[in-house]
Amino acid sequence: MKVLATNDDGIYADGLWALRDALSALGEVIVVAPDRPRSASGHAITLHKPLRVREVSLTNGEWGYCTNGTPSDCVVLGIVDIVGKPDLVVSGINVGANLGEDLTYSGTVCAAMEAALFEVPAFSISITSDEVEDFGPAAEVALRLAEEIGKHGLPPDTFLNVNVPPLPREKVAGIAVTTQGRRRYQSRLEKRLDPRGKEYYWLKGDLEDALDAGDTDVKAVARGFVSVTPIHLDLTDYGFIDALKGWDLFRSR
Amino acid sequence: MKVLATNDDGIYADGLWALRDALSALGEVIVVAPDRPRSASGHAITLHKPLRVREVSLTNGEWGYCTNGTPSDCVVLGIVDIVGKPDLVVSGINVGANLGEDLTYSGTVCAAMEAALFEVPAFSISITSDEVEDFGPAAEVALRLAEEIGKHGLPPDTFLNVNVPPLPREKVAGIAVTTQGRRRYQSRLEKRLDPRGKEYYWLKGDLEDALDAGDTDVKAVARGFVSVTPIHLDLTDYGFIDALKGWDLFRSR
Repeated sequence: MKVLATNDDGIYADGLWALRDALSALGEVIVVAPDRPRSASGHAITLHKPLRVREVSLTNGEWGYCTNGTPSDCVVLGIVDIVGKPDLVVSGINVGANLGEDLTYSGTVCAAMEAALFEVPAFSISITSDEVEDFGPAAEVALRLAEEIGKHGLPPDTFLNVNVPPLPREKVAGIAVTTQGRRRYQSRLEKRLDPRGKEYYWLKGDLEDALDAGDTDVKAVARGFVSVTPIHLDLTDYGFIDALKGWDLFRSR
Repeated sequence: MKVLATNDDGIYADGLWALRDALSALGEVIVVAPDRPRSASGHAITLHKPLRVREVSLTNGEWGYCTNGTPSDCVVLGIVDIVGKPDLVVSGINVGANLGEDLTYSGTVCAAMEAALFEVPAFSISITSDEVEDFGPAAEVALRLAEEIGKHGLPPDTFLNVNVPPLPREKVAGIAVTTQGRRRYQSRLEKRLDPRGKEYYWLKGDLEDALDAGDTDVKAVARGFVSVTPIHLDLTDYGFIDALKGWDLFRSR
């Protein structure tokens, strides 16, 4: 099995190498990752400037390719040029949750989305804590999931988004197949004054941790489960099409 | 009606001001847009550095707010601080198609997505050509759609993505309610050598204009129609959940 590993925390992030080590049990794992942290870069790709790739050796003895691009750029560069079409793309292990509406903001998740556009099976994996001590349980989930994808494949236009609670292995309640939930952000901005008295803003997101209805990723992780959510590339709201056809859009003016 | 207008081509783009002028028929239109082109920025938001807002007067006599952030940042800043909760957010008029898989790459489309997360009705609007002479027909569509949204509202978690063919008004075939299609990109990278003999890459996307099955945005625009696609914030692949539950993820190792 040939695996392309990437992330949005950058090539020096421990979670990436924990992922690489775990997946090495399945075959060759090639790392193509951003040269610096690119959190919240969404599905951004770099069109306005050239991209560079270089090989990096790490002090832990590992090596990989890094680029000046986004996580999605890394997947394009990896699949089209550096690695060739792999059997699997895995993005992570991210430090911080990618649940509910986080998905489209997340560089981690959108790297897996990019792979799905290339018709390569893919998943993203995150630990739902901003401070991670042990990547072991998440790495184990990644390996298990990679084995199952190897066995079953994934449907076209579908990838998986995985979130692992920050618990010791024996405290993880299990693995739950979930839907994408909603987390409401209570406040999104903080306005400050700089030393020259001028206003500036920090974006933030204080979560109102409402547990929404249904078997959602948000709820599963809050209950100690690993959540696995299948995500589809088609965002059409099919349920609204008939009503929309009834609108008076065709009136001549 | 209070409208927040933004885009990803930046505050100096003509399409933004054509949009602003058209929507002024409905009430107050406040522009909050990026200070430079931010195409293909997806749903990226800026967490790693502060955001600034400044007022800009244009030589055409117009004025608006610009920020150093992404289109989605502009929507957050606009709704939370500058404008307050508007009745409608419109993003565009973009120069270039946002069809099929372009949606999640597009700063234009994801600005409307951001508004939907704030539970504000929103749509994105693009002209499917990289060279636009006349924004008139698209501006007229934007006004018509804004009127209808004012009358009917939009369902929760839903926004609209609109694409207008680059045709004179009388040649536009009509307005079609569509699904999100697929356009296959034939090649995605061009590798070059710099003057020092080092490799670099340009991302590109040569389109294989396969007309996919169903009433898609891609097909409608190719036939001269304006496409209006309802997009939902929930990306869950509900059709794959039962099969995924059958996977052997729970085996103890």
